[in-house]
Formats: sequence, C-alpha cells, structure tokens
Amino acid sequence: MIKIAIMGYGTVGSGVVEVLNTNKESIAKRSGDYIGVKYVLDLRDFEGDPIQDKIVHDYQIIVNDPEVKVVVETMGGVEPAYTFVKAMLLAGKHVTTSNKALVAEKGAELIALAKEKNVNFLFEASVGGGIPIIRPLNSSLTADEIEEITGILNGTTNYMLTQMAANGSEFDDVLKDAQAKGYAEKDPSADIEGYDACRKIAILTSLVCGQQVDFTDIHTEGITKITATDIKYAKAMGRAIKLLASSKKQDDGYIAMVAPYMIDATHPLYPVNGVFNAIFVHGNVLGDAMFYGSGAGKLPTASAVVSDVVDIAKHLDRNIWVEWSGEKKELLDYKKSVNKYFVRTTATKEDVKKAFDNVTFIEAEGVTGEVGFVTEAMSEEEYTDKAAKLGVVLGMIRVA
Amino acid sequence: MIKIAIMGYGTVGSGVVEVLNTNKESIAKRSGDYIGVKYVLDLRDFEGDPIQDKIVHDYQIIVNDPEVKVVVETMGGVEPAYTFVKAMLLAGKHVTTSNKALVAEKGAELIALAKEKNVNFLFEASVGGGIPIIRPLNSSLTADEIEEITGILNGTTNYMLTQMAANGSEFDDVLKDAQAKGYAEKDPSADIEGYDACRKIAILTSLVCGQQVDFTDIHTEGITKITATDIKYAKAMGRAIKLLASSKKQDDGYIAMVAPYMIDATHPLYPVNGVFNAIFVHGNVLGDAMFYGSGAGKLPTASAVVSDVVDIAKHLDRNIWVEWSGEKKELLDYKKSVNKYFVRTTATKEDVKKAFDNVTFIEAEGVTGEVGFVTEAMSEEEYTDKAAKLGVVLGMIRVA
Repeated sequence: MIKIAIMGYGTVGSGVVEVLNTNKESIAKRSGDYIGVKYVLDLRDFEGDPIQDKIVHDYQIIVNDPEVKVVVETMGGVEPAYTFVKAMLLAGKHVTTSNKALVAEKGAELIALAKEKNVNFLFEASVGGGIPIIRPLNSSLTADEIEEITGILNGTTNYMLTQMAANGSEFDDVLKDAQAKGYAEKDPSADIEGYDACRKIAILTSLVCGQQVDFTDIHTEGITKITATDIKYAKAMGRAIKLLASSKKQDDGYIAMVAPYMIDATHPLYPVNGVFNAIFVHGNVLGDAMFYGSGAGKLPTASAVVSDVVDIAKHLDRNIWVEWSGEKKELLDYKKSVNKYFVRTTATKEDVKKAFDNVTFIEAEGVTGEVGFVTEAMSEEEYTDKAAKLGVVLGMIRVA
Repeated sequence: MIKIAIMGYGTVGSGVVEVLNTNKESIAKRSGDYIGVKYVLDLRDFEGDPIQDKIVHDYQIIVNDPEVKVVVETMGGVEPAYTFVKAMLLAGKHVTTSNKALVAEKGAELIALAKEKNVNFLFEASVGGGIPIIRPLNSSLTADEIEEITGILNGTTNYMLTQMAANGSEFDDVLKDAQAKGYAEKDPSADIEGYDACRKIAILTSLVCGQQVDFTDIHTEGITKITATDIKYAKAMGRAIKLLASSKKQDDGYIAMVAPYMIDATHPLYPVNGVFNAIFVHGNVLGDAMFYGSGAGKLPTASAVVSDVVDIAKHLDRNIWVEWSGEKKELLDYKKSVNKYFVRTTATKEDVKKAFDNVTFIEAEGVTGEVGFVTEAMSEEEYTDKAAKLGVVLGMIRVA
C-alpha cells in the first residue's frame, strides 16, 4: 500500500478521500498498489467523520513519518501551504496540489526542489479543475510551439455571465444569486475582479514558455463593469460575453491578459456556459485544440488531484519532467496587443466618426440615449488615444 | 542524438519529418536530446526530396541497426505494418504508430510485447488525429470509472454532414464535393460506412475497459442513408445530425456502436463542425469533459506522432504503463441500448399512434407526403418490434 497524507480537509481534501474510496479498485489497478490515507492535517477535529482518527494538527508528524510517500495539499493560499509543501519535498515526499495561488507564486521553486530531491511536484487540479490540461501541456503538446492559449478559467464568472445573458439581469442581482447558490464567495473579489483567472493563466503561460511568468505582470480586468445593456448589444451582434484569460505569442514574446471579450458563435469557447471551463490552445503544427470540463467542484477537482497521485505512484523513483524554470519571463506590454473594441458612448455618431476611422454602429433593442459601435482592429494604446479624443466612454469590451 | 526511422513516407510520415524540422529546438529541449531521422522506409525513391539518401526499401536494415532506438510507423493497414512493427519491438526498438487498423486489431498483442521487451508501443495519432486523447485516457483520467466515451471520430463524414446542413444538399452531391476537395477518398466506404470510426471507438473502448474489444463486435451504421429531408427535420427540431461513435457503461458491461444521431444544441458535440473531431468523456467523479481538435490532416496527425516520440525519448529505459490486456471483452448486445428514435414513414398518424405509445410528431418546412415523429425512450429491440408493426419506415435516426 502507498501511504499518503492530505493537508486540508475542506471541499477538495474531503473530495480526494471520497474519490479514493469510490474508485478504490480501479485506482489501485492503475497505481500498481492500493492508496491508503494515513494522515489528514487540519486545524479542526471532525468528530464522527470516518477520517477522525487520522486527523493531525502538526505537519511535522507527516514530515517525520517515512512511511508517507505522497502528500496532497488542498489547503489553498500561499502560507502556510508553501512552508508545509517545501518541508514535505525536502523530506523526500512527492506532493500534488490543487492550490493555484501556491503554484502561480512558488511553482518554479517547488518544481526545481522536487527535481533536486528526485520526487514529483504535480498540480493538475490548480487550473481548470477536473479538466486535464497541465499534464497534456506537459506531455502531449510537446511537438508544438504553443502560439495561443486562451481559457474560460473561472466558473463563477462564467456562471454569472451566462445568467446575465439568459435572463437579461444586472450584475448585482446575478452576483447575489451566485452567492446564494454557493458558486460565489461572500467576498467575491477573487473571482469577479479576475484575480483567480489571472493566477491560472500565469501558470499556463509559465508552462508554455518554460519560464516563470509573474501573475502581477498580467493586465487583469474583471466583469464588474459588465451591464445588462452590454448583454443586449452582444445579442444584437450574435455574440456572447466571456471572461477570457489568454496568452498570445507576438513577435518573440507573449502578451498575457485577463478581460471580458465579446466572442462570436464560431469561436470554440462560445458554447461554454454555466460553471464549465474550457481551454483553447493553438499550436504551430497542431492547429486548434480545446479542452472542456468542470472547472471547479468537489469531485471533479479531486479527480484531478487523484490522477496526480496515480501518476506519482507510477513514478515513485523518478522525477517527471516539467519545463518551468525560475528564470523570469518578461511579458510584452499588453498595450501592444491588437483587438477590435466595442464601445458605448454618449457622444454623437459624428463625433465617433471623427475620433475613430472605420466603425460599425450597433443598434440594440431597447437601448436609447447612447451610441454603440465596434472599431477596426488596433493596438490597445491606439484605442486609448482615440477614446480619449472621443470623450465620454460608458463602457468598452474587446471583440475577438 | 536519438536516431529514429520512419516507415511510410506518405502524408503523415512526411508530416513527421516536417514537424521535426519546424520545431527542432523545442522538441530537443523537451526530449532531452535532438531527434534525427536515420532511415525512411518506403517502396518509392523520392528523388530530389531532402530525405532521398535516407530511403531504404528493406525493413530489415532498420531491424538490424542498433543505433535506431525509435521507429515511427505511418504506413497504414494491418499488413505489412504488423510484421514490421513486431520485428522492431522484438529487436528492442520503441514504436509509435498513427495506424488505427493496426492498433484496433493488434494493439493488445503489441502492447504486451513492448512491455516484455521493456520498450514502448504508443499510438496517440491513431484516434482523433492531433487531439490528445490516448495519453489523457491513459495517464490523466486515471481517478475515474469512465461511464461514457462518445466521439465525432471521422472528419470526412462530419464535413459532409456539416455541408448537408449548411446547404441543404443531398448526400451524393456532398460526397462528390468532399472527394474533389481531397477530404474523401475515391473509395469512400471506410469513412461513409462508419468503419473508420468503428476502429477508433474499438481502440478507445479497449483503453477504457483495459481489455481487448474487437471492432467486429461493434454495431456500425454509416451516413449513406442520411438525406436532405432528414436535415430539414433536424433543423425543425433544433438539432444537428452527427455520426457518433460511442461506448456506454450499462449494468456491468459496455455497449458500443457507431451510428448517426440527432443531437440538440446543449450537447457538447453539437458545435463540432467541418473536419474537426471531438471526444466527449463522462467519468463517475470527473463528470463531463471534452477534447476537441483536428481529427486528421498532415501536420496535426504528425504533431501527435512526434509527441509520442518525445514521450518515448523521456522513457527510453522503461515501459509506460498502458492498461489493455489481450483478454477479450465481450460487449453487451447493442439491442439492449436505450434511445429515442426519429422516424419517417408513409403510414398515417393514426397508424403511428397504434404502433408507438407516446410520440411527438414533427413538421418540417417543405416536407409533405410523409409523417415524421420522435418516439419515447426504448430499447433497440423494442423499437424494431414496433417499427415492424408500423410497416413502411423511410428512415430512422437515433435521438440523443
């Protein structure tokens, strides 16, 4: 039996226990041995829970037990997860984590440490929940130069945008509904401001470049400015508004950003609705590919964590290659990225034509007292200049 | 440098050379060494081609050259590919193939032989072209019991059905167009009769079960009976007609079949158009996932082959676990599978109501002189009985 420890018995951690129990035999067959949970680290005691007698409060108990070969980190947040994970790797234990904050900030360091100790640090569940994307990037898309990776990486915001489109409702009402349903947290800023998606695209971009991409370098806009009026315009254009997190190769670098986009019905991400996530990849020889599935949720995320445990079980004596060095990758300035822009303004059509050269005016049902239009393709900085000339801009959404 | 040989310099084989040249540096970085083509086996000479001096006509030259560690098989067909591949594995060489016919028929045996010789037999490109699906099934979806795997696995037929839907054209005209564009072969039966998709779902089902599934056991219907009238009905129902190859867990077994289905707009495979392929997977803990991309074509397929070469380069001294034993898996009779059925008949609505209990009649624009209806869910055998009672059936398409 391969003995494991789980750090953090919240939604994902308890999901890991459930998945290991539910599919015990098939997981054993694929791992070459049974997987047994020896410890569960948590501040709480979980009286009456079947794992109660496995609960420990001190991570050093796990560090000092040579029987534990694999540690699952499902606590979330950078600290104390970082301290604990580092100690486990230093003690020669393999680690898998679902913690995007930890991976985005400390990924390169922990990967290097795992390499040094000839163990593994895996993080399939940190991006896209149950969707296999980290392992495919690392071991399947290896014949390609990835020229674009664009994802719907946050289920909460995708659920909210889907609801707004379905019901014509305003942002605040949909947020309340998402909170009531448990899809959004009391403090929803990590989701709605795009911070969560930002960390995830930082991880994907690091893997694509093979170098450290700092999430603080990624221009990030959330969905808080999206209104029911924007949705009306999107519908008039046959488009959907999605929060996209993307990295695109341009010249010899990458431009990464998180922002709402209007995408049309032929875009592979257009039909991705509700809490689902999807990741679109364009490779220079592969062409277009897409990975779709449950981006969050107890069991899908736990499924990804356990797939890491199985992979580790098959590589107990060797490090699985991951290309992500600590050398910092400077991103290109997002202001160089080229887009079309949908703009709403109180200026007149004449003024719009003066400020922008070629525009397409959009009429949306029931919208009056303002002008909506789509610009031709131009860089962000060019757009900013022209918008300043125009004067009052009620809102802008990029068009892809 | 890792020396490889390519057997078969057709579309995919020459694509492999192109991919290795195009992404030489990044592939070397990921493989840990440069990949060099030492031999290309083909009956032809390719005078003037840069690989001309690497051409050999006798596979024994490759078998007997200990410098060649990896062999790429892109010839197609069971023989002589089987004889050549077996000889390569017996000589201790790793093999990757894009050959679905070979994998469907001899996969279990060649996997076992590779294990015995501590080398690898990989076949990512045999299903779904460039879409990573074999490796994800084998190494990412390992925490799950796969309860369903359903794919659009043939780009030719999907292109044809997409064209029929877009233009309202008849099957024969669309086939001629596909042949003119090079999407369909002169003898198109492997595609349009569903044989190609059948071999691919046999491979996927074998991987899901971990046992040998014989493609001859899979009930297979092609798209030759689909008419412009069927498309009109599908549109009236807001559905698309797709050739689906599927395996579903039922009781303790799997039912596998290939047939056209009418699917609605909420189905993850609905937006998959043209020559694209996609594979939908439902796991008992993962829930729904989908993999989408180019199902065929020179470079996408070659990208998958080269990803196998990179994987082999990272596992030159050890066998990568693949769960697919030679023990035969008996499939459940497809007549036990439960579906709704769209039926066209010259019988009256009264007769339809007598033969089937609950039906929904469908009116399609411009269709007269016949009755179209959808049945309630029932087994295939129950449907067959009721349809026999009804008498003249002009056509039947399953509804999913």
